[in-house]
Formats: sequence, C-alpha cells, structure tokens
Amino acid sequence: MTKLKNDTLIRALLRQPTPYTPVWVMRQAGRYLPEYNQTRARAGNFLGLCKNPDYATEVTMQPLARYALDAAIVFSDILTIPDAMGLGLYFADGEGPKFERPLREEWEIRNLRVPDPSVHLRYVIDAVSQIRRALADEVPLIGFSGSPFTLACYMIEGGASADFRLVKTMLYQQPALLHHILDINSRAVIDYLNAQIEAGAQAVMIFDTWGGALADAAYREFSLAYLQRIIAGLKREHDGAIIPSIVFTKGGGLWLEDIAAIGCDGVGLDWTVNIGAARRRVGDRVALQGNLDPAVLFAEPAIIRGQVQQVLDAYGHGSGHIFNLGHGISQFTPPEHVATLVDAVHELSRAHH
Amino acid sequence: MTKLKNDTLIRALLRQPTPYTPVWVMRQAGRYLPEYNQTRARAGNFLGLCKNPDYATEVTMQPLARYALDAAIVFSDILTIPDAMGLGLYFADGEGPKFERPLREEWEIRNLRVPDPSVHLRYVIDAVSQIRRALADEVPLIGFSGSPFTLACYMIEGGASADFRLVKTMLYQQPALLHHILDINSRAVIDYLNAQIEAGAQAVMIFDTWGGALADAAYREFSLAYLQRIIAGLKREHDGAIIPSIVFTKGGGLWLEDIAAIGCDGVGLDWTVNIGAARRRVGDRVALQGNLDPAVLFAEPAIIRGQVQQVLDAYGHGSGHIFNLGHGISQFTPPEHVATLVDAVHELSRAHH
Repeated sequence: MTKLKNDTLIRALLRQPTPYTPVWVMRQAGRYLPEYNQTRARAGNFLGLCKNPDYATEVTMQPLARYALDAAIVFSDILTIPDAMGLGLYFADGEGPKFERPLREEWEIRNLRVPDPSVHLRYVIDAVSQIRRALADEVPLIGFSGSPFTLACYMIEGGASADFRLVKTMLYQQPALLHHILDINSRAVIDYLNAQIEAGAQAVMIFDTWGGALADAAYREFSLAYLQRIIAGLKREHDGAIIPSIVFTKGGGLWLEDIAAIGCDGVGLDWTVNIGAARRRVGDRVALQGNLDPAVLFAEPAIIRGQVQQVLDAYGHGSGHIFNLGHGISQFTPPEHVATLVDAVHELSRAHH
Repeated sequence: MTKLKNDTLIRALLRQPTPYTPVWVMRQAGRYLPEYNQTRARAGNFLGLCKNPDYATEVTMQPLARYALDAAIVFSDILTIPDAMGLGLYFADGEGPKFERPLREEWEIRNLRVPDPSVHLRYVIDAVSQIRRALADEVPLIGFSGSPFTLACYMIEGGASADFRLVKTMLYQQPALLHHILDINSRAVIDYLNAQIEAGAQAVMIFDTWGGALADAAYREFSLAYLQRIIAGLKREHDGAIIPSIVFTKGGGLWLEDIAAIGCDGVGLDWTVNIGAARRRVGDRVALQGNLDPAVLFAEPAIIRGQVQQVLDAYGHGSGHIFNLGHGISQFTPPEHVATLVDAVHELSRAHH
C-alpha cells in the first residue's frame, strides 16, 4: 500500500476530517495554460495528446507545477470508449467532438461490443501508470469516463446536439434499443474504470454531461439506473486503499437526493445549485464537489476570493466538501486567477475545519 | 367587458375550475407548419413576419385553424425591446438572433433609454389589436416579452452564447453596470407588456430563457428580482377582466418556490421537472404550465398519448394546470402529432377535473 503525501481529496470524499478543503479544477490541464498549448502544438492536436502517454503525462502534470492542487486527473476525453468501439472519434475545429461512424442502423447497434481496455484503451491505461509514477504519491490521481447516456448521445447524434433529436426519438420510440446501447456502454465503463483503478487511479469520476437534458422519468430510467449499475460494478479497493467515486450530472440539481442514493461517495454540483441547500438535501450520505461558476475566474482576484468565501460559507463547517468549479474551466481564464482560486480555498477554508 | 367563448386558460391560471386542462404550445406558430413557411417566404424572413401586423396576424391564427388550442400567442420575438432601443436585431441563417450593435462600451450602456412602445414597438401593439379582432373572442390572446436578464444576455453578448462570458464578466466584475441595464430593461418590459394589455392581450408571459445559466445567488439578484419588479408593475385588470401573468425560467426548477413567491399567477416548467413534485413544492400559490419534453412529439401517436397521460397524472386532480411543452416546439415535429397532443390533453384530462 502506497501512502499519499496529500490525501485530503480522498479523505474529503470519504467524509473524514481534513485540515482544509481540497481543491481541483475540472479541465485543469487545458487551453488556458500556455504550456498546454505548446505541448498540444507539438502533439498536433487534442487526440494526439490523449493517445500518447508521454504527452498525456506531461500535460496532466502542468497545472500541478503551477498551483497547489490537491488532485491530478488523467488527461483524456470522455469519449474514448465509443472510439475504442470503432466509431472514429475526431475533433472538428470549434465544433467539439464528433464521430465518423455514428450509430444510424439497428445492425450497427446490435454489432456493438464491449471493448477490452487492455487492448483498445491501452493508451489510457498506460497514461494512468505513467502519471502515477510522475506524481510520486504527492496527490491522488483521478480516473474518469463519460456516463453511458452521455456516450450514447454522442454515439447516436454523431456530435454535440442542441435538441438531442435522434437519441430522444430512440428513447421514446424504441426504448429497448437505447437500453441495449446503454447496457453495452455500462459494461464498457465498468471495465474501463476498473482497468484505470488497477493501473493506479485512486478515485474515479463519471461525467454525465447530458443527463440533465432528460425529462425527470427518462433521467431515472436511461441515465441514473446505469450510473447506479456502474457504481455497483467498480472495484472498491486497490492496493490497500478505498477508491472513492464521484458522479456528476450537469444540470442534475433536481435529482441530488436520487444521485446521492446510488452508492457513490461524492456528487458533483454545477454552479446553479446552492451548495448549502444541496448539503441539507443529501445529509451526510455523500461528499459534495463544486461548485463555483467558472465565469467568476474572469473577474479580478478580490472578487474571486469573495465568491470562494461564499461557496465555502454556503457549504458550512466540517468535511465532505471538495472545492471545484461547477463546470470545466474556460479557455479564456487568466492562468494567474487559478492561483488566486486555489490559494483562497486553502486559506479561507481552514476556519471551516 | 368582452366575454371569452373559451376561457379555460384564464380560469386555469387563476386556479378556478375548468372542465378539462387547457393546452397551448410554445412557438405554436412556427416552422413545423407548412403554411407558416409559405407565409414566411412571402414576408421574406422571420423579422418581416414580426414587423408586419397583417403577416403576424396570419401566422398567429394558423395553428388555431388546425388544432383545438385553448390560447393564441402574439407572433413576435423575445428581443423586440433591444431592437427598439436601436441595437439592430437580425437573424443570421441557422445562428439564431444577433445584434448589429451589441453593448460594448460603458457610454453605450449609459445612453440606453426605455423605448416608447406606442412608437418604437407600434408594430407589436398593432398586431395585438388586429389578432384580437381575428380571434373574435374564441380563445384568449397571450402577450409576451423576454426577461430583463435574457434581454441583457443578447444585448451584451450580441447573440446566443455557450458560456455567457461577457455578461457574466460584467455581472461579477461590474455588477452596478449590469444592474443599470436590468433597470432600464425592466422598465421597458413593464411599459411594453402594459401596452400589449391595453391593446388586448388577455394574459402575459415573460420568457426568462437564460436565467437558468446563472449561479444560485446571481439568479436571485440579477434575474428574479427584476421579474418580481415587472409583475408588480403590470396592469392587473383591463376591460373588466383580470390579466394573469406567467413567468418561465428555463432551467429554473431549483428555484420554483422563489419564482412562485413573486406574485405571478403561473409558473412555466421545463421538461426536467416532475410536475407533481413541482405542485407539492409550490402548493396552491400558483398555476403550473408545462411540461412535456418537445422530443416526445417525434414519436408515434400512441406514445405521445402515453406521455401526455403521465404528465396529467403527475399533476393530479384539480385546476391550475396549463398543458404545454417544456420548451418551444421543434421545427422537425410532424404537424399531425400536434393534433394528437391537443386532442389527448382534452380527452384524457377530463378525468382529472
């Protein structure tokens, strides 16, 4: 069993006492960092970074060199699984992720197979091992995946969508077919996250980016049920340590009690939720991660500190809070404002512990 | 005082008994209707329809000729006010609304004036009068406006935005400047809606399309407070009838109790909210409007009926429900599916009254 030098993230996720509130930032290795853009230029593009463990390790470590972050997150994409299924992930300039071969025919759906992560996602598993070595047990490494429903959205739509017309038409018109995709995706996510855990991920997070686009009953049936199944299928311990899990449904503030009941250790909150109200709703069942509006980082340092204070005060006293943004950091964020954020969380949160 | 032949919408908004649940559809005069597209082609474009009272009347009446809808809504756009302020509204193909002269400099903001609706928005007021004559008191006419914050988003960003970077930077960095814009916008919305009421609008609705993009505290300060001010400034009666108001914050499900407390008669719900849970939260303070997922209308009639039944059952027994979609109808909706929807609401809701 390895001993983490800074285990505040793990302890907060397990609602154990910590001297301060740990903080990390979704998409902390990203385009707001000049050194990231330099590495990306060398790699050619975003996928070139993801698929090369040397580059993935290099960019994962970059924000840790600048800021006193309490966690690293493996540099990867939420859509690696459908890419490993053969759908052909690519990134069109300014348009977000797309698939060359989205699911259009029923036979394509029936042919979907759960990819073997040690073969088709080897580059992620290797990156996890390599990043763990680079981290030298300073802070924990978070592994992650997209949620089954979020993967299905991209697999069916072929890219981002404003109205999710194709996936929702299938949901209402052919629910069994969508359930088939979600079943495959769930088994794939379980295998993938367990492979990341075996390679050294010390916590895992599931990004349910599009679950919040669903109607209430549809969310429960087509997203939450599969999130629950994944949590039940994850390795609980590795190398003598508990591996906590975080579930983040963006736009899921209405369903917090339900998400908190599926067995995960932490629930991610977007910025629309009052984190104090969220804590009262979920009680001590789970830790809460979030939830500063990423746009706060466009403002000057004194304002950032004030907004950090408000989130900390809303959460209140005691452990169980992992500070983060309510969404990935914007590429337009001044890098020095992230230092303000991290230092403010560490300094101002001590009074709450 | 004129007597409406079908006053179920007004009665439901005032939580008075009705024999069935009234139904109308957001964006019911829209691109899914072939006759709408024909009129639009004659008018040249969308703004040509809005700005000509004859065309606006023609397209407002089109869905009423096809379906047994319980209300008409004046054909217009949520952004007429900033256009009347001189910002130059236009529609780029496939990109949604844009402004030629978005607010970029503080002096431009300080120069903003509340437009006189009888001058700069004359075309809307004339359309309201003309549509009322065409309706011949069959069903009530709903007037509407965008919310102060939603108008400000477009005025500052210059168009739709994924991250609201400019408006949120102002919100956190220069809150007094944004409050100045919101103050002007609120006074403009009050004058505009009261002018619509005087011209014959029998209910009014405020579309807070982007309030749901705000952090909890920011929503209260920068959107809800101004919605409350508008409700307080609206004419309560005209021509011997009460004029009910509806407030719809898309993505506002977390704030329903707060929205229900600002004095409006009805609260619009998007499809992510369970309407039964919403009713338990707001009690009998307000009527609820919504909230079928617009994507349900892509499915076949039997499925549409089943989903309508679920929304009706979730709301439960009694008055106070106005059936609608949880968002504007998609242009890809088969027109005959709207007939299925309207007829299903009328038929299936009788058991609930």
